[in-house]
Amino acid sequence: MRTVNLGIIGLGTVGGGVVKLIQHHHDKYVQKYGIDLRIVKACSRSANAGERLGIPAENYTQNWQEVANNPEVDIVIELIGGEHPAMEIFETAFANKKHIITANKALLGRHMEHLAKLANENGVQLRCEAAAAGGIPVVHALEHDLMANDILTIAGIMNGTTNYILSRMKNEGLDFDEVLTAAQAAGYAEADPTADVEGYDAASKIAILSSIGFQSRISTDDVFTQGIQKISATDIEMARECGRVIKLLAIARKTPEGADVRVHPTMIPENHQLASVDGAMNAVFVVGDAVGETMFYGAGAGSFPTASAVCGDIMALAESISRDQIPIAEKAPFTKELEILNIDERQTEFYLRLEVADKVGTLTTCTSIFAKHGVSISRINQNESNNENTCELIFFTHKASEKSMRETCEELNQTNGVTTVASLIRVEDTSTWNNGIFDN
Amino acid sequence: MRTVNLGIIGLGTVGGGVVKLIQHHHDKYVQKYGIDLRIVKACSRSANAGERLGIPAENYTQNWQEVANNPEVDIVIELIGGEHPAMEIFETAFANKKHIITANKALLGRHMEHLAKLANENGVQLRCEAAAAGGIPVVHALEHDLMANDILTIAGIMNGTTNYILSRMKNEGLDFDEVLTAAQAAGYAEADPTADVEGYDAASKIAILSSIGFQSRISTDDVFTQGIQKISATDIEMARECGRVIKLLAIARKTPEGADVRVHPTMIPENHQLASVDGAMNAVFVVGDAVGETMFYGAGAGSFPTASAVCGDIMALAESISRDQIPIAEKAPFTKELEILNIDERQTEFYLRLEVADKVGTLTTCTSIFAKHGVSISRINQNESNNENTCELIFFTHKASEKSMRETCEELNQTNGVTTVASLIRVEDTSTWNNGIFDN
Repeated sequence: MRTVNLGIIGLGTVGGGVVKLIQHHHDKYVQKYGIDLRIVKACSRSANAGERLGIPAENYTQNWQEVANNPEVDIVIELIGGEHPAMEIFETAFANKKHIITANKALLGRHMEHLAKLANENGVQLRCEAAAAGGIPVVHALEHDLMANDILTIAGIMNGTTNYILSRMKNEGLDFDEVLTAAQAAGYAEADPTADVEGYDAASKIAILSSIGFQSRISTDDVFTQGIQKISATDIEMARECGRVIKLLAIARKTPEGADVRVHPTMIPENHQLASVDGAMNAVFVVGDAVGETMFYGAGAGSFPTASAVCGDIMALAESISRDQIPIAEKAPFTKELEILNIDERQTEFYLRLEVADKVGTLTTCTSIFAKHGVSISRINQNESNNENTCELIFFTHKASEKSMRETCEELNQTNGVTTVASLIRVEDTSTWNNGIFDN
Repeated sequence: MRTVNLGIIGLGTVGGGVVKLIQHHHDKYVQKYGIDLRIVKACSRSANAGERLGIPAENYTQNWQEVANNPEVDIVIELIGGEHPAMEIFETAFANKKHIITANKALLGRHMEHLAKLANENGVQLRCEAAAAGGIPVVHALEHDLMANDILTIAGIMNGTTNYILSRMKNEGLDFDEVLTAAQAAGYAEADPTADVEGYDAASKIAILSSIGFQSRISTDDVFTQGIQKISATDIEMARECGRVIKLLAIARKTPEGADVRVHPTMIPENHQLASVDGAMNAVFVVGDAVGETMFYGAGAGSFPTASAVCGDIMALAESISRDQIPIAEKAPFTKELEILNIDERQTEFYLRLEVADKVGTLTTCTSIFAKHGVSISRINQNESNNENTCELIFFTHKASEKSMRETCEELNQTNGVTTVASLIRVEDTSTWNNGIFDN
């Protein structure tokens, strides 16, 4: 048995958790698994991050090159996030034949093909369990446990901040802005919440998971993305009235026309397994042709949950390295095998809330615009508002194309009497997620 | 790339699913993963099972020895269930240095230590993803993805038949017997439902999962087991009144006093993630010190879901074998490191329903018996029954030991006026499942 030598770059929330977890369980790993992990070099921008974690000065550096070029290091663990200098770290470490473990969704969401190619060419592994759903072991499930399946759908709550906000809005009847402020105060939302609230974080994650699940390259830039900023207490109440809840879902479906990949606020049935996932928790629903419906639930962020995923990846490599076996190299990267479905062509039911002038004829004007674009309405509600000159019009539609609905919204927006197209929410037909499951 | 040669023993529901899944996806596995699976020998007791699945006569046998002793076979896949001749198949195949994949919970629940030892000594693997929760990849999560954690609790719905029965009882207000009959007619329950209804099936599964999770040998015979036969519509309604649902849970907790391992009907909070798992679906809740709460949800039985797990195990071995690499051998077996907690010492809240004679003084007699044994009552309900001479007494208790409660029940059972101690249900404090999670 030989030691497995780790180089860690980034000692923030996740990196600090990884160091503490390894320190805490080092002897157990030796005793139970014959795995002796040693942090030979740790790196952070700050001068004293190493000392704070009890890392001896000779094992600490502020220069990532000393980790990525360190001849002793077997595995580089990149936990700084962002595209640069993470890209350069990967390129250097791979060139030095080092395995890489990362939680970097921004980098992998856009550059997985390039990076998997480098890993494959250099005969090493690129592992990213922590990059998609924090502590939830869904990357490995897609890559290995479910690999005998054709994966049909991956759909989930992949951002804890927005799920925390939507859960509190639902449970306490609050509006978006008040909960966001409270979430920031409680540490559940960043000072700049854009990446979470606008859905970009979830878009990176579904790009990674769908690339692995569908074995076809899907980039963050391929994901249609809409955030939760416009969701109001009214929207949540209207959803409840028809037995639904609103969740920010990241959804990837393999359809005959291509990969349908998107992030948006979604009305799902209140008895769906994802509907009861509340607070900052995450859950990923995976449908395979053989296994049928599965769901993986847990913490999508946080120091120790994410460290659990990173250290699971470390242990997987360490099982071979500690026995002087060479881990199987990364597979050749996925090519762009599936076309990305043109969002215009997607058919779904919609929920639309308008703020309009409270005067005769507005409703008729609006319904005629829906009709003109071929969007069939299934239900209308007219709610009083706090402002006596305006009211809210709420429409549920039958299935319509995204294009028709977008054009409907554009025309409504320019219509005299319509103050605002306030929120547009997709009413998901979750039964389509199961299209293609084998009959037992 | 060389072919990976499979020998399958058992072509029933699961074995048939495995054959069909491999036939269906053979070319995809070659193309995507470079894995060429070949069924070189399949075995079943029936004369025509092979022909029905399109297996050529020269690859079919009714004698398992022709599989376990076949020099071409790399992996023996045992899907006949039961302890014999499965044990002999394992011993023969291991002696021949063949890896084994199995779904056999009865065998592994009792003999995992012996079998893991044989695998280890012969340098091969014993894989059993399908033995614990059908298609749900929780065995692999415990063995690998979460191995950096100290596993604190494994608790789940691990039997589809009983969950189907309890779900219909809850949703339709029916009694046990009517739902069991309907479940048998619908194919959700066996003609002899004993193993499911009395909890033995779930006991085998929690023995396997807790052995892996706690890295300590726990046998089916160590599991305290109580079934759902006595649960009535009243019990379910009483649970609902206090915001709880009744599930047959298999629970394993690592406590300072030892492993607390049990299967019994359990009242859990209605907003707990396990409470919404309905119908024949299964879910396993796993708590690790780093990852915190996780849950794995999916089909715990059925032809293709179970085949998904078996084929996932095949692919894991095949990734090495097809590259002419030798898979890492099974680890040395777990020893009995944790003591099994004496059930007498467990403290929990209880729910108890008695059928009693409807006469003055019975309630006083009963409450005095609780007091005598030191069991403190938190709530009493007295319900009318269909029979005018009897009524139902329902007690919720504060925390009490299993021993005190058992002695209370024994004395109540012999008490004049008490017709039956009808049902005893544990009210689980699910917050204790999280004892030991690291603070983030």
